[in-house]
This record gives sequence, structure tokens and C-alpha cells, in this order.
Amino acid sequence: MKKILVSVIGGHKCDEKTAEVAEKVGKIIAEEGAVLVSGGLAGVMEAANRGAVSAGGLTVGIIPGNDKSEANEFVNIVITTGIGYARNTIVATGSDIVVALPGEYGTLSEIGFALSLKKKVYGLGSWEMPEVIKLESPEELREVISGLK
Amino acid sequence: MKKILVSVIGGHKCDEKTAEVAEKVGKIIAEEGAVLVSGGLAGVMEAANRGAVSAGGLTVGIIPGNDKSEANEFVNIVITTGIGYARNTIVATGSDIVVALPGEYGTLSEIGFALSLKKKVYGLGSWEMPEVIKLESPEELREVISGLK
Amino acid sequence: MKKILVSVIGGHKCDEKTAEVAEKVGKIIAEEGAVLVSGGLAGVMEAANRGAVSAGGLTVGIIPGNDKSEANEFVNIVITTGIGYARNTIVATGSDIVVALPGEYGTLSEIGFALSLKKKVYGLGSWEMPEVIKLESPEELREVISGLK
Amino acid sequence: MKKILVSVIGGHKCDEKTAEVAEKVGKIIAEEGAVLVSGGLAGVMEAANRGAVSAGGLTVGIIPGNDKSEANEFVNIVITTGIGYARNTIVATGSDIVVALPGEYGTLSEIGFALSLKKKVYGLGSWEMPEVIKLESPEELREVISGLK
Repeated sequence: MKKILVSVIGGHKCDEKTAEVAEKVGKIIAEEGAVLVSGGLAGVMEAANRGAVSAGGLTVGIIPGNDKSEANEFVNIVITTGIGYARNTIVATGSDIVVALPGEYGTLSEIGFALSLKKKVYGLGSWEMPEVIKLESPEELREVISGLK
Repeated sequence: MKKILVSVIGGHKCDEKTAEVAEKVGKIIAEEGAVLVSGGLAGVMEAANRGAVSAGGLTVGIIPGNDKSEANEFVNIVITTGIGYARNTIVATGSDIVVALPGEYGTLSEIGFALSLKKKVYGLGSWEMPEVIKLESPEELREVISGLK
Repeated sequence: MKKILVSVIGGHKCDEKTAEVAEKVGKIIAEEGAVLVSGGLAGVMEAANRGAVSAGGLTVGIIPGNDKSEANEFVNIVITTGIGYARNTIVATGSDIVVALPGEYGTLSEIGFALSLKKKVYGLGSWEMPEVIKLESPEELREVISGLK
Repeated sequence: MKKILVSVIGGHKCDEKTAEVAEKVGKIIAEEGAVLVSGGLAGVMEAANRGAVSAGGLTVGIIPGNDKSEANEFVNIVITTGIGYARNTIVATGSDIVVALPGEYGTLSEIGFALSLKKKVYGLGSWEMPEVIKLESPEELREVISGLK
């Protein structure tokens, strides 16, 4: 009854190539029946949410502020936290696994936070750390998510 | 595309009568097409979640710890926060409106927190405060939720 | 070596009479050798901090934002949290005891939060709750603080 | 009236050489009249606090739990947050600057978090990042802290 949750983290700005990867990641998460959790704003988050929604998936956005309209339009369930960027800690550890795409220091904080709580982090072109599991393509996520069921 | 979110708050222990009201509240939230948000544990939270799920609804549980198995079995989407009872602030302000059932000081903190952020709180036998809107029965929630669409 | 910490909570606006009580509370906390913790902003917080500083005491302000200049001028140690009003949970439970003066729903949330964690709350004209210990005058705090040493 | 605050971050376990550096850092912070903020537990945090206290300084520990006895014995002001490792976000951004010593992923999360909020981070053998300002020795902190006054 409890659904599998997959967090997607990455920059709130991103180039087109990264957006394509993010959208593909979102699509795969949805196709595998998992819920996509993110920080709910723009860039990687929005692209991933768009991908998930295009495949009929469900998306949760955990946003910094108190106004749900700040979330991108592809977030189905907007959790307004009001705790600012400390919401990164919840995005990073609130789900079953984390998929990291390119991002800046906010993304780094999320990777650090997830790893410090022994959460598995899968990297697609993001910060490279010894314990980040590097993926060659989004397709590899299918097996990872299947393994969580 | 963004769903209506309704938080249900109340004690982690409750008597049978309160559980019945909570279950009814959950059922109505689901029937009105809204997502039920709660603290994800026992008592009022569990009864409300059971009601929502029995009516085919979707439930989000924002839990204090890092272990998703702590959530009750009727939570579909478990957000593990790891921030302890500070998660009350997110349950109280993370959704569109709050429905308050009987509870102790944790519930009081949520009511205070919601009201301090101008979130509307509907009371069903909970702490009475000047700005808590008292309902006579769960049925009255239908109109309230309809008004949010 | 660990100092006694006393949180003072109350409205960010207050009338003159309340400000006088708050200032007296701050002075007594300082005279008894304890550190005054508050939300660091205006009203009751500022008056209490002014009282503590006037008596040579030390004050900690746990503020919602990231800019330390938002704290009132009588805060010695400004902790910028960036977590918004969720910082109420830290003001309410981060110290040894809580002294509650008149305030609105933010103050109520702090009282509820403190009581839910079994923290002792002493009331001076604030929200009346069964487990809030009502004081007749700030002077009674001397004995309370002495008892913590 | 507002004091300069310096956060010291690093592992909750550390080797003797790192402890010596941390102690020296704490001593310098105290000698420069700043308050030392840390996560309040063991390892780097404890060594830095010991250094600061040995030089007559003041130390603040922002700890994960609700029990102040969990803080190391060199913390003067223990803020019990109850928010678990999300308190890292407050240690990282609650003060004027951050000094990073060797640590694991918790330390990395703090560096990422501080940098994402444009807080200056000074590194002494810690994670190397483009925007971490590398110091050769703790002595260099004197000038940095002086520049904040």
C-alpha cells in the first residue's frame, strides 16, 4: 500500500540536454509505478515532473515557501513547508532513493545529507562522490526501482 | 493539475467515537477528490487515513522519523522527515486547510501554527480558539472542500 | 559549565504594560545567571532582551530569516535559521524552561509545542492552559531558575 | 552589541592531528572575541569547543536531540533542537562564517548548504570545493575574523 518514492535533485536552472535527461528520469519513475519527489521548483525539478506527468505518474513537490503557486505546474501534490532551503533535507531523505542530476551547491547539500543518512544516491552527471552510484543512462533506473518493490 | 490538500490533525491516541469521526472525515476528503495529509502515525491520523483509503483516496503522511515503516498502513505516500515533532509545522501549514479533531498539546501546537500563518482551521471537537471555525459534522467539509476548487 | 537557558515567548507587538513585565522578566533571568533565549524580533522579545542586557545578561535570538540585522539590538548572539516560523519549535523546546507572556497564535504554537515535549511553561498573562504554571509576578521566576541549577 | 559568530564543522570522530587543529581553531576564535557555534557533539566539535573554552571563549552547541546532556562538556549554551540532522542547516547558515575541518558526508552537507546561501566557508583539510577558501593554518583565521568586526 505504501508507494515507492524517488527523489530527483538538481539545479533550479539547467541546460537543454540536462532537461532532457531529467524528463526521461521522470518518465521512467512514473512508468515503474513510483512517486516522484522533488523540491518542486524550476530547472531539473520541473523537467522531471513534466516527464512523470506525461507518463501518467504522480509528483510531490516539497517547496521552500508557503505559497503553493511557487511550485511548477507539473507538481500534483505541493507541500508548502515554509522552512526555506532547509526543505532540502526533506527532499534528500524523505524518499526511498535519490537520483542526482547536475546542480550547484544546493544539490551538493542534498547529496551530502542523503549520504550521511545512508540513503542511496544515483548520479547522472552530478557531483561525483565516492558513495554516489554512477549511472550511464536513465534506463538503468528501471532495475533500481524494481528492486525496491 | 495541483490537487487540493487537506490536513487532518488530532491525537495519536483516540477513543472509538473520535476514530469514527476521523474515518468519516477521511472518507469525505477522498470523495471530494482531495488528498489527505497527516502526521502519518496512529489514532486520529490512522483512522482518517483508513477512511480516505476505503473511499479510494490518496494519503500523505509526514512522519517525524527516518523509517517509513513507522507510518500507519493506510498512508500511501510516506515522507520521512527526520525532524521529529517539528514536522508538526509542515502538517499544519503544508496543505490548503486544516481539520482539527480532539488531540493534546501536539494538536494545539499545530492549530496555533496554522492560525499564525492565516491558514483556515476547521474544528470537530478539538481545542476551541476564536479563529477555529467550528463544524457540527464532517458532512460540512464537503462544501468547504468544494469551495477550494 | 552548561548554562541555564530560559526562553521568553510572546507577541511581536505588545502594549506598554506587557513590555514592562517582559523587561522585568529579562532582568531577572540575567540576575539569576541564566541565558535568555527568544525569537529575537520585536515586542515582548525585544523588551525582554533589553531587560536582560541592562542587567549584564546574555541573550540568544533564534530568528526566522537569514539576515542577522533583523534581530533586535539587544540580542547578543543571533542564530539565523532561515526556517521561518518553524523556528518557533526551537525557541519553544531549545531551552530549559519557557516563560510565556501575552501573544497571539505564534505564541500559542510555542506553548503547545513546549508542552507536547513536556517542557515546563510558566505563564504571565499568556494563553491559559491546564499545564501552564501561572505566575503572579516575574519575581517568582527567581526561585524557579534557582531550582534548575 | 551583536557578537561575531563562527561555525566550526567537521566529523564527530577525528584523529589526534585533526583534534589539535580544531582545538587551535577554537582557541583563536575565542581570542578574537567571537562566539564558536557548532553541532555540539564529539570529535571536531568537542575539540574546537575545548579550545575556545580554554581561552575563555563562549560556545554554542546546536544539537540534534532534545536532551542537553548529549552536548559535549565544553558547550556553554546548548540549543536542543529536536530536528535531528536537519540541524546541520542551522549550524551551516546560522553564523557569520564557517570553518570546515575534515569530516564525512554530514560535513559535506553543511558545506553545500553554507555555499548555497553564499556564506563564506574556510577550509582546513576538509572537502575541497571551488568556492571553499583554503587556509594553510588556523592562524589565518585571525585576520578573517578581524575583518568581520
